Amino acid sequence: MGDHPLKQEIAKADKAINERDFDTVANCYTDEAVLVVKPGTLVHGRESIKEAFKKIADYFNDSLKVSQGDMVIIEAGDIALVLSKTYVESPEKVDSAFAAERDAIYVYKKTADGKWLCAIDNSYGVELLKTTA
Amino acid sequence: MGDHPLKQEIAKADKAINERDFDTVANCYTDEAVLVVKPGTLVHGRESIKEAFKKIADYFNDSLKVSQGDMVIIEAGDIALVLSKTYVESPEKVDSAFAAERDAIYVYKKTADGKWLCAIDNSYGVELLKTTA
Repeated sequence: MGDHPLKQEIAKADKAINERDFDTVANCYTDEAVLVVKPGTLVHGRESIKEAFKKIADYFNDSLKVSQGDMVIIEAGDIALVLSKTYVESPEKVDSAFAAERDAIYVYKKTADGKWLCAIDNSYGVELLKTTA
Repeated sequence: MGDHPLKQEIAKADKAINERDFDTVANCYTDEAVLVVKPGTLVHGRESIKEAFKKIADYFNDSLKVSQGDMVIIEAGDIALVLSKTYVESPEKVDSAFAAERDAIYVYKKTADGKWLCAIDNSYGVELLKTTA
């Protein structure tokens, strides 16, 4: 699994988030992508996602560090489901609800030229089911 | 959420599974769909999925009953992520690992004529991360 292109794509996106390179972050998403900022708060579209990441970085005083652990990738044609241990750390906000280990769910879509783009970024995973009850 | 077309699609698929109507079941999936039969066992392609459901039904002596509870649907263009409380019951196999409540993850794709088809059917959800460690 170490060499899967999607693993590299996600590592690139994490690096860009951690370095406040928001143009690169935005280019990892489809035009119509959805980001779950927190349970109940969804952001739609690449440009809005870019703005959301700027706000998140500001909230953490640029101390945010996102990384991934174990990953399961299931490909079905031009769609892939990624399950990933995601670590969201920030020395500035140790008590924050943002700082946590999560079982994230990402859905990727492969473009006609073979590039994987994130369509749905839900780092909260199935935790969202708890907030609907 | 009660009227979302995807909720109806999934209810239709569950009904077909419970009634052994495997043609209808197969038609709920994309050509290249993937079904997670159990952790580590993936079945690829509509026809193979149809055969897998027949075997699963046989295993349960046709007593299988699949249903869904709370559901979260996140749409991003022609892709949708569905998180769903899934109930897999069978009076014939009460001790089976199959019989359980699960936080399932489904990925759907909308065809050009607006029909949602299942691309990835992972009723085990993020549990798959536990089997990779």
